[in-house]
Amino acid sequence: MSALLIDPILEAELNARRADVAAIDPGLLPLVDRLIRFTRNGGKQLRPQFLWWGWRAGGGEEHGPGAEATRRAAASLELIQASALIHDDIMDNSDTRRGRPSMHVTVGMSAAIMLGDLALAWADDMFIAAAVELGAGPETLGAWRGMRTEVIAGQLLDLRAAGDHTRDAAIQIREARQVNRFKTAAYTVERPLHLGAALAGAAPRVVTALRTFGIDVGIAFQLRDDLLGVFGDAAVTGKPAGDDLVEAKRTVLLGMARLMLAGKPELLAELDAGVGRDGGPGLTRRLTEIIAGTGAVNAIEGEIDTLLATGLAALDQVRLPPGMVGELRVLAAAATSRRS
Amino acid sequence: MSALLIDPILEAELNARRADVAAIDPGLLPLVDRLIRFTRNGGKQLRPQFLWWGWRAGGGEEHGPGAEATRRAAASLELIQASALIHDDIMDNSDTRRGRPSMHVTVGMSAAIMLGDLALAWADDMFIAAAVELGAGPETLGAWRGMRTEVIAGQLLDLRAAGDHTRDAAIQIREARQVNRFKTAAYTVERPLHLGAALAGAAPRVVTALRTFGIDVGIAFQLRDDLLGVFGDAAVTGKPAGDDLVEAKRTVLLGMARLMLAGKPELLAELDAGVGRDGGPGLTRRLTEIIAGTGAVNAIEGEIDTLLATGLAALDQVRLPPGMVGELRVLAAAATSRRS
Repeated sequence: MSALLIDPILEAELNARRADVAAIDPGLLPLVDRLIRFTRNGGKQLRPQFLWWGWRAGGGEEHGPGAEATRRAAASLELIQASALIHDDIMDNSDTRRGRPSMHVTVGMSAAIMLGDLALAWADDMFIAAAVELGAGPETLGAWRGMRTEVIAGQLLDLRAAGDHTRDAAIQIREARQVNRFKTAAYTVERPLHLGAALAGAAPRVVTALRTFGIDVGIAFQLRDDLLGVFGDAAVTGKPAGDDLVEAKRTVLLGMARLMLAGKPELLAELDAGVGRDGGPGLTRRLTEIIAGTGAVNAIEGEIDTLLATGLAALDQVRLPPGMVGELRVLAAAATSRRS
Repeated sequence: MSALLIDPILEAELNARRADVAAIDPGLLPLVDRLIRFTRNGGKQLRPQFLWWGWRAGGGEEHGPGAEATRRAAASLELIQASALIHDDIMDNSDTRRGRPSMHVTVGMSAAIMLGDLALAWADDMFIAAAVELGAGPETLGAWRGMRTEVIAGQLLDLRAAGDHTRDAAIQIREARQVNRFKTAAYTVERPLHLGAALAGAAPRVVTALRTFGIDVGIAFQLRDDLLGVFGDAAVTGKPAGDDLVEAKRTVLLGMARLMLAGKPELLAELDAGVGRDGGPGLTRRLTEIIAGTGAVNAIEGEIDTLLATGLAALDQVRLPPGMVGELRVLAAAATSRRS
């Protein structure tokens, strides 16, 4: 796969926005530079990749002015992501992000709320300028509107689900799946593909196939994230081992483990008592052991495989340009087999 | 002046967005309905009026499809305002808004951050859909980009200025003027006029004249707000009398009063000691009396008059469509002579 390079595009855009701020008051630059650095250290940059391959799979050219505008549209997703992470960390009261102090710890809560707003506004500016240049119509604007409403709605669903982690496991799983569908799958894979395909003016059948593929891959992406949040190698993920357990994150994995422990009330009680506590590596090891013993990991791994298979099968329903199924397959594998 | 009626337009748009949320999860509707009600109870709706009269003054038609799209563009500013107020109240730790509990008091801080984000995203959706329909180009997109960056930058400047209220009065005044320029004048008057004129495809000279007028009227608007925040009638403003004093708001008015008390250190000390304290109506009366005794009120009233005159003079530099100077004059008077 020839990965899309968005760093120089993002740099140019952020420099232009930085100049806007400098014209208002240069005294704001130290603050705004923190947002710029945060956005540019964006990690895997998966969302821009999915937008780009949605464009290519939808018939968009690899080179030329349309491709250039699409690269800018793709890069704008990193600004949405910066906004989401900054506001998420405030809501979750998370002190670290990517191994460094989170934005609100560094600049204070009020400034962090504003920098998140600024990133959201700039994402719109960047995407819409590119989309207008490409003559984008209702399909593109609808996908853009849908993506932003969905990620915020997903976050609201997540807040609602963040109650007692010891309640009915089946409800917990259902709620986690709903969050995964909108906060992750729509926002990370489905809509980026949709945006790219819409910008390319792809046929409705192609758009539908890409979105179906995107939902399955996006959910699988989140399930992989659940596994890494419990079993991931801290040196690779950048997060402490068992971080999701300490934070009592309501994942499908935890819900499944709890469901599977229905016949072993002592173990379930031990798990429930340990989740949400920062009891050091000893406790983390013990909880990880309990979850590993349930068979929930195999179930989730199986679900990831199934989702990848159904997602790829959706692509077989349409004829994509040569090589595109292969590119999308590689990208899907990268999103769901990752170690970080 | 035939005021622009945006309520039905806003209602239709918000109902469409509500349906998007219902499709994601109907359980989110009680929360989202709070945002919708908050947006629809928007008070004076000045920003949409300025956008509309920017359109008309820029040569836009009163009726027809272009006018209809422009009304939608105008109404979108109420969503920006809802977002700004919800996030502002979190940052200022304000418990009330328009005489009712503020959003974060009602739904909690996390959900309020998200509802503010949702309003910001929806504002973009609404404005951009209308702008694309009108074939908007770089001038319109630049004005839209400028407005959102400016209001957030103005808010960041406001946060920076919110330090010690007893420091050097001249610095205090300078900082307050900078906040007024971006957080209020650009966002409330200049850019709405600019957006309307840009959508109408107005000539650059007309755009410049309207923006110059808008900056002056916008600053005058904020100075009136400063006066109302100290001397306003609680029954009319909906805010407690002397509210700005209790909140130690860094206004030009307070800075001027402090500057004028340079020769009366006892009074200055009494004022500084009282500002930022909730000492009941007795204290408010006394502080109001001190400020009134300084001549700062006359200075501010004089500045408002001057700004109105210079603003209107800018309009004389260009030829606007018949009746437009009169409409803009009435609107400017409403924004700067108001009692609430």
